[in-house]
Amino acid sequence: MAIPPEIFLLPPKSEATLQQQIQQIVAETIVSGRCAAGERMPSSRKLADHLGVSRITVTLAYTELVANEYLISRDRSGYFVADSAPKRPIFVGQTAEEKGGVDWESRLAHRPRSREDILRPPNWTDYKYPFIYGQSDPDLFDHRNWRNCSLRAVGRKDFNTLTHDHYQNDDPMLVEFILRYILPRRGIRAHPDEILITLGGQNALWMIAQLLLSEGQKAIVENPCFPGLRKIFDQMRYVASSIDVDNEGLPPDLIPPDADVVFTTPSHHAPTNVTMPLDRRLAMLEKALREDFIIVEDDYEFEMSFLSPPAPALKSMDQAGSVIYLGSFSKSIFPGLRLGYVVAAKPLIQEMRKLRTVVLRHPPSHIQRTTAYFLSLGHYDSQINRMARAFSKRRAIMEACIREFKLKLDVHEMHGGSSFWMKAPPGVDTTKLALELRKHSVLIEPGSAFYAYRSPDTSHYRLAYSSINANLIHDGMELVAAAMEAAEKAQ
Amino acid sequence: MAIPPEIFLLPPKSEATLQQQIQQIVAETIVSGRCAAGERMPSSRKLADHLGVSRITVTLAYTELVANEYLISRDRSGYFVADSAPKRPIFVGQTAEEKGGVDWESRLAHRPRSREDILRPPNWTDYKYPFIYGQSDPDLFDHRNWRNCSLRAVGRKDFNTLTHDHYQNDDPMLVEFILRYILPRRGIRAHPDEILITLGGQNALWMIAQLLLSEGQKAIVENPCFPGLRKIFDQMRYVASSIDVDNEGLPPDLIPPDADVVFTTPSHHAPTNVTMPLDRRLAMLEKALREDFIIVEDDYEFEMSFLSPPAPALKSMDQAGSVIYLGSFSKSIFPGLRLGYVVAAKPLIQEMRKLRTVVLRHPPSHIQRTTAYFLSLGHYDSQINRMARAFSKRRAIMEACIREFKLKLDVHEMHGGSSFWMKAPPGVDTTKLALELRKHSVLIEPGSAFYAYRSPDTSHYRLAYSSINANLIHDGMELVAAAMEAAEKAQ
Repeated sequence: MAIPPEIFLLPPKSEATLQQQIQQIVAETIVSGRCAAGERMPSSRKLADHLGVSRITVTLAYTELVANEYLISRDRSGYFVADSAPKRPIFVGQTAEEKGGVDWESRLAHRPRSREDILRPPNWTDYKYPFIYGQSDPDLFDHRNWRNCSLRAVGRKDFNTLTHDHYQNDDPMLVEFILRYILPRRGIRAHPDEILITLGGQNALWMIAQLLLSEGQKAIVENPCFPGLRKIFDQMRYVASSIDVDNEGLPPDLIPPDADVVFTTPSHHAPTNVTMPLDRRLAMLEKALREDFIIVEDDYEFEMSFLSPPAPALKSMDQAGSVIYLGSFSKSIFPGLRLGYVVAAKPLIQEMRKLRTVVLRHPPSHIQRTTAYFLSLGHYDSQINRMARAFSKRRAIMEACIREFKLKLDVHEMHGGSSFWMKAPPGVDTTKLALELRKHSVLIEPGSAFYAYRSPDTSHYRLAYSSINANLIHDGMELVAAAMEAAEKAQ
Repeated sequence: MAIPPEIFLLPPKSEATLQQQIQQIVAETIVSGRCAAGERMPSSRKLADHLGVSRITVTLAYTELVANEYLISRDRSGYFVADSAPKRPIFVGQTAEEKGGVDWESRLAHRPRSREDILRPPNWTDYKYPFIYGQSDPDLFDHRNWRNCSLRAVGRKDFNTLTHDHYQNDDPMLVEFILRYILPRRGIRAHPDEILITLGGQNALWMIAQLLLSEGQKAIVENPCFPGLRKIFDQMRYVASSIDVDNEGLPPDLIPPDADVVFTTPSHHAPTNVTMPLDRRLAMLEKALREDFIIVEDDYEFEMSFLSPPAPALKSMDQAGSVIYLGSFSKSIFPGLRLGYVVAAKPLIQEMRKLRTVVLRHPPSHIQRTTAYFLSLGHYDSQINRMARAFSKRRAIMEACIREFKLKLDVHEMHGGSSFWMKAPPGVDTTKLALELRKHSVLIEPGSAFYAYRSPDTSHYRLAYSSINANLIHDGMELVAAAMEAAEKAQ
């Protein structure tokens, strides 16, 4: 392929002749690996035009570079980078950091402490037994129809939707289908101005925290809870109060009277999977009204309620507008999509929209429109049904293995989901266990990242079945059980 | 189309019989407009399964609904929403706001003041003469190849890239092509760990402001400047210091000794389009080192330097790592893409990556990979060349019209771009002028949104030629000139 002339720029200050400068920049470009052997140099005319020098200067520089074996000349077809040219690895420039220079440490002095990440290696697909949560499974995804919808969304008809800067606005087609097809399943009715599209659930939680948690506001989170939420507080240098969940989720009685915002996951508590029963939901709503707090309901995985029908969302019973509802397509479509939505009172949505405009304008239009087509053509429904059937089958195998290998469930939830919350025998550190299991090509998620700092818990772990093939579950679980036994004995 | 049973949920508390409850929820769903006339109801078996009631209860409810003309029954094919069913507009639910409830005003008390937006109506394509900036032009965009790249990016080979949650990581293919194809044109060499992909330039500026502008830090911005940057400061409740630009951009001499971060647009100053000459660039870098400030170089439109080759970026001459470089694909591909990048010292990139993970995880994978293909297959280069040729032609027509109609340029810039910064005769308020011109299907951008609060300027306006057809420029400019004359006389 031909090297574009634009990559060559003369140095701003130089005592060398123009010809020398050209030789220098070409040589430097080749040595640094930015042009590969065999690539064609720009013609002398093009490079001369670009650099604003005479053509003969470039030709002389090229001739010299041939002599120095940086380039070779082929009759009629021009100059090419020589195989014999000196090579260095692609990224050779000394970084400014290495040279000294700006003291970034002091400029970034207010960095928040950062938590340990959950141990999920980026190359998790290389592991044979990935009991990891929240990723997609190529065997269950409706690839063909997603492709069709994506193609349709880049069609000429949708050109304006695709390409324009929409400033603060969402794709109206996606908003309509969320209002008409998704929210009614959760019993929620909303106006278009009560919904905002977000860059996934993480982005929604972050915006809510930004707008509602100014100084002196008290936030309540579940313990254990979704680590992404804790990271938001850490980044804001905000300390939230944790309340331990029980077998029915967050107990409303334990919410202190001075709470301002309560973050909860009533459908499937993350990560234990327990479902908050109806009476507790009603008690929570009554308490919110009486004591004037806002509820943030993260309904991140309601689609996976395949064991019994999902309980209506808190939002569906919310008469006063105290509930901010969050949905996400990360579990039902795929997480790399980065698309979610918030349903809340209009004044809050307006403020969130302003904040989103400043932070990122709007989610990319192409993915909004593709998702709208996927919903409108019914592919979303069939995908969810397919996933529910597969997860139900995998879950049954997992349960049989848990019994067979005498592993211990921490809670028995009721509505499905895509993982189990497990408890290791006393004294076993599941972080170490997870690292040990990697040697056997098994991935599990240690539980400590889900707990508040004040109650580090190393005895829990999560076993998900959303990304593991049903046929591999038994062997994988056997390896988990064996490692567990070894860890217990080693104490 | 068949209505999915999932949209029906029994009320949480009810004294009615099950049959009555079912009638009620079906009727309510129809009246609220969530099911349209002619749509098929779920079969009695499916709805009974979903609600956990007996099938006969559903059948009795349906029969009653037929009697009440909500439904009609068709032999063998089931129940359908009747044409005669009572109708109300789609969104009838009284909002919580109307009912009273949460006092959002007080909860959002710390809302930043918000600035006037630039007057760009969302339906700008309906205007015949859109002299507006920053949108894409369907005639110049390489639609076919973008479509091919998009299709390739949803192919099976790229499945993992497309669907997985990449946590804090970018698409390595996109990073590689930015490093190899784009940055060298600006004279910039960088390591992969010195670059971060962002949701467009706005997102990059926002992250930088978040990390570098803690209390007591002094930021300098150009006056006039990109309104999106001012919005970021407003949202942070941060007051930046403005320095007036001259015909060579931001004067380094006017930067005060206590400056910490300087935001600048040396290639094409936004919005005046002036280019900072080399000696001023070198002076700026020297001053940054001497007085220890950071330069944020927004190189938002370097691709459109078609009148003379672009000057090397400040970043290319940055020995000490004082420069944070921002690039964007909004102008060269399209703004609805929402994709940009930052090149900076590794410690800053690490912190930006952490912040991005908390705020939104990562830009959607599909658009990253599509862009990577568009770059790697050379379509990006041809697109830029095509745009440059078209803009060059349009610019020449614009210049002829400016002379013919005796309109006044504020500055004569040198390198291209896609707009002119204009000055109205004394006393003409360009905001009013812009509104008046809309009546004649002409869109221009009034200049006041670009100025600091302390120096509101109503005499400037921007005329862009990035979205207007060359054949329409003359007539549009004639209308601008006529309105200008009328406004001047009306005083």
